[in-house]
Amino acid sequence: MNKKIITISREFGSGGRTIGKQLAEKLGIPCYDKELIEKLAEQTGLAKKYIEEQGEYAPSTSPFSYAFVGRGVNGLSISDYLWNEQRKKIQELAQKEACVIVGRCADYVLRDRKDVLNVFIHAPEADRARRIVEVYGETDTEPKKRLREKDKKRAINYKYYTEQEWGKADNYHLTLDSSLFGIEGCVDLLYHILTDKGQD
Amino acid sequence: MNKKIITISREFGSGGRTIGKQLAEKLGIPCYDKELIEKLAEQTGLAKKYIEEQGEYAPSTSPFSYAFVGRGVNGLSISDYLWNEQRKKIQELAQKEACVIVGRCADYVLRDRKDVLNVFIHAPEADRARRIVEVYGETDTEPKKRLREKDKKRAINYKYYTEQEWGKADNYHLTLDSSLFGIEGCVDLLYHILTDKGQD
Repeated sequence: MNKKIITISREFGSGGRTIGKQLAEKLGIPCYDKELIEKLAEQTGLAKKYIEEQGEYAPSTSPFSYAFVGRGVNGLSISDYLWNEQRKKIQELAQKEACVIVGRCADYVLRDRKDVLNVFIHAPEADRARRIVEVYGETDTEPKKRLREKDKKRAINYKYYTEQEWGKADNYHLTLDSSLFGIEGCVDLLYHILTDKGQD
Repeated sequence: MNKKIITISREFGSGGRTIGKQLAEKLGIPCYDKELIEKLAEQTGLAKKYIEEQGEYAPSTSPFSYAFVGRGVNGLSISDYLWNEQRKKIQELAQKEACVIVGRCADYVLRDRKDVLNVFIHAPEADRARRIVEVYGETDTEPKKRLREKDKKRAINYKYYTEQEWGKADNYHLTLDSSLFGIEGCVDLLYHILTDKGQD
């Protein structure tokens, strides 16, 4: 299949980030997730933690979000400023090289390119709740509540900037339930799809 | 992969029905679509055309839907009566043998079984509009309008009986854009998933 960019959108706790990373390794191409955050931090001067959270979460419409940058960034809120910088960086990366991009509405940002495979990874709530405790440890907040809060923020962010419904099959070429296929199974299947000579 | 029942849900014009049929042939198992309608017609005495349309479309809540069966079928509307019979028939088929079942909320009906792979096939509107003209011919109604009407009815029917959103990735193990993979590509990929010895 003639696709050089793979975007991975994912429900929190579904293993989508790990799948993206392992797929990129197997394909021998870079995976932009934390690396994208670092590049944006250098470029915008915003804190990594802020980019990590706000780059995918519900946009702030509070007047304070303007106040903190003194309305100095072309009159944009920090959320909109970050969205613009993130969009430009994603387009630049896709133009430069074959890569995997995790999250950050990359499917939508790159919608005009023909060389992009858009993937969405999800899993039932119970499986994701178990996984986030294994991977990120316990917190004071109950796991299912953590999932719902994170996914709700991602969905609102996606809707706000793309006017599409997050997690709707129509927005992706392929969606996979990682609880059925497993992390490795998802990586293998995507690798099979991307490299199978029989398909284009 | 240890799945013996495959349910195929699909957007109108996406080729999902054809994919289901070809996959079943390749696996050497029956595909229930028209065959299911015929069985239901025998069993219920309802016309095939009625079952074909109403079994997947928006439920009728008109008092006439009761009047036609004289409120005689345990006081159910024809829609609810058909839903019940359809549900029982799908459960019976799944119990009996490995098979592919196209449409009719089979994913939801069989949700308690562990041996079911739920697939959703979709494609962009422009591709589906082209396909329905090729497959079903022209009608007085503009193709995109035909698509939207059919899909809207399917979505309402699904929501009414399952309380889930039709076409949302979460409801399926796998969703595929048939305009990218092609009919044959979808069949091959599903066959690969179902028969690959490396996965379970």
